[in-house]
Amino acid sequence: MSRRPGPRSDRVDVRGDILGSARALFATRGFTGTTMRAVAEGAGVDVALVPYYFGNKDGLFAAVLELPVDPHQKIDEIFAQGLDGVGERIVREVAALLDDPVTGPALLGLMRSAMTEGPANDVVREFIDNVIIGAYARHLPGPDARRRAALAASQIVGLAMARRVVGIEPLATMTVDELVAHVGPTLQHYLAADLD
Amino acid sequence: MSRRPGPRSDRVDVRGDILGSARALFATRGFTGTTMRAVAEGAGVDVALVPYYFGNKDGLFAAVLELPVDPHQKIDEIFAQGLDGVGERIVREVAALLDDPVTGPALLGLMRSAMTEGPANDVVREFIDNVIIGAYARHLPGPDARRRAALAASQIVGLAMARRVVGIEPLATMTVDELVAHVGPTLQHYLAADLD
Repeated sequence: MSRRPGPRSDRVDVRGDILGSARALFATRGFTGTTMRAVAEGAGVDVALVPYYFGNKDGLFAAVLELPVDPHQKIDEIFAQGLDGVGERIVREVAALLDDPVTGPALLGLMRSAMTEGPANDVVREFIDNVIIGAYARHLPGPDARRRAALAASQIVGLAMARRVVGIEPLATMTVDELVAHVGPTLQHYLAADLD
Repeated sequence: MSRRPGPRSDRVDVRGDILGSARALFATRGFTGTTMRAVAEGAGVDVALVPYYFGNKDGLFAAVLELPVDPHQKIDEIFAQGLDGVGERIVREVAALLDDPVTGPALLGLMRSAMTEGPANDVVREFIDNVIIGAYARHLPGPDARRRAALAASQIVGLAMARRVVGIEPLATMTVDELVAHVGPTLQHYLAADLD
């Protein structure tokens, strides 16, 4: 896309400017410390344009991390059908995202960033903490919500590592149905069973 | 340690020379393709000196990866008490290794290598496949042994990521007893329960 000279309101890459401002702010202030208003100011655009392009702060964060899906929305969909069978639905969705030629590499990139030291790691940690764990926890009842979500996240991350990053057999080549049968009950237990 | 000039049999860092040869061979031929004999030849030492310094190929690999423990031996110890309660014993041991000021950073380094692309990743994958999963599987009965070991490994890796790499609360600050109570039953299920 060519960039025309002219006043700021006249430029063509408003979306890219918002992303650039958001990337800088998330890196320095973290997810919690970054407001939509500050992102708009940094980009020199009207604050209404941020939700116009990215929906909400989660969507903006997903775009900054170049995630091809909004995890928040995916998680809401999975829990919309209730807690019954939620473990199996999560494994099915995670396997589909990992095996997909677009979302798979994006998730691997996110995990690689999480492994590095420094600001990229902090941003990913904030994202996992606030968006992923937060979204799960919001759908879970009682004071154990966050503990349940974190335990489930540990199994999901480990599954992703084993299937796609390290390539541990037979997990790397198991069918999605086999993964669902084996790992679904673990997530179901963490999310919905009596923990103590 | 100073290196004296002289014939090869007279030098002082035989151990270091064996490690250097092993590191190069593991990186190019992988764990399976590397023999103790080839390591000794590469180092210009008698083949008997390799087991003298490192016990066996697993011990040599652990030394190359700068692991402060021989995982093979640890796993044997855990299973020596039988399958009853093995899930809890593994979580307790993993948590102790992760929280230890010497072994913790070494394990994080191993996981970081596993996340990168290229020869280091291949070496770590071979190690996890042949040493870790293999050692677990050897203690498990029946044709499902490898599947059980791989499922357990996925939860262990995810726990390590959540507790030490990403730092997901409350997993990062949970006591070892709480981790054992929550994650022990998952490992017990993967390793010893009816899978189908």
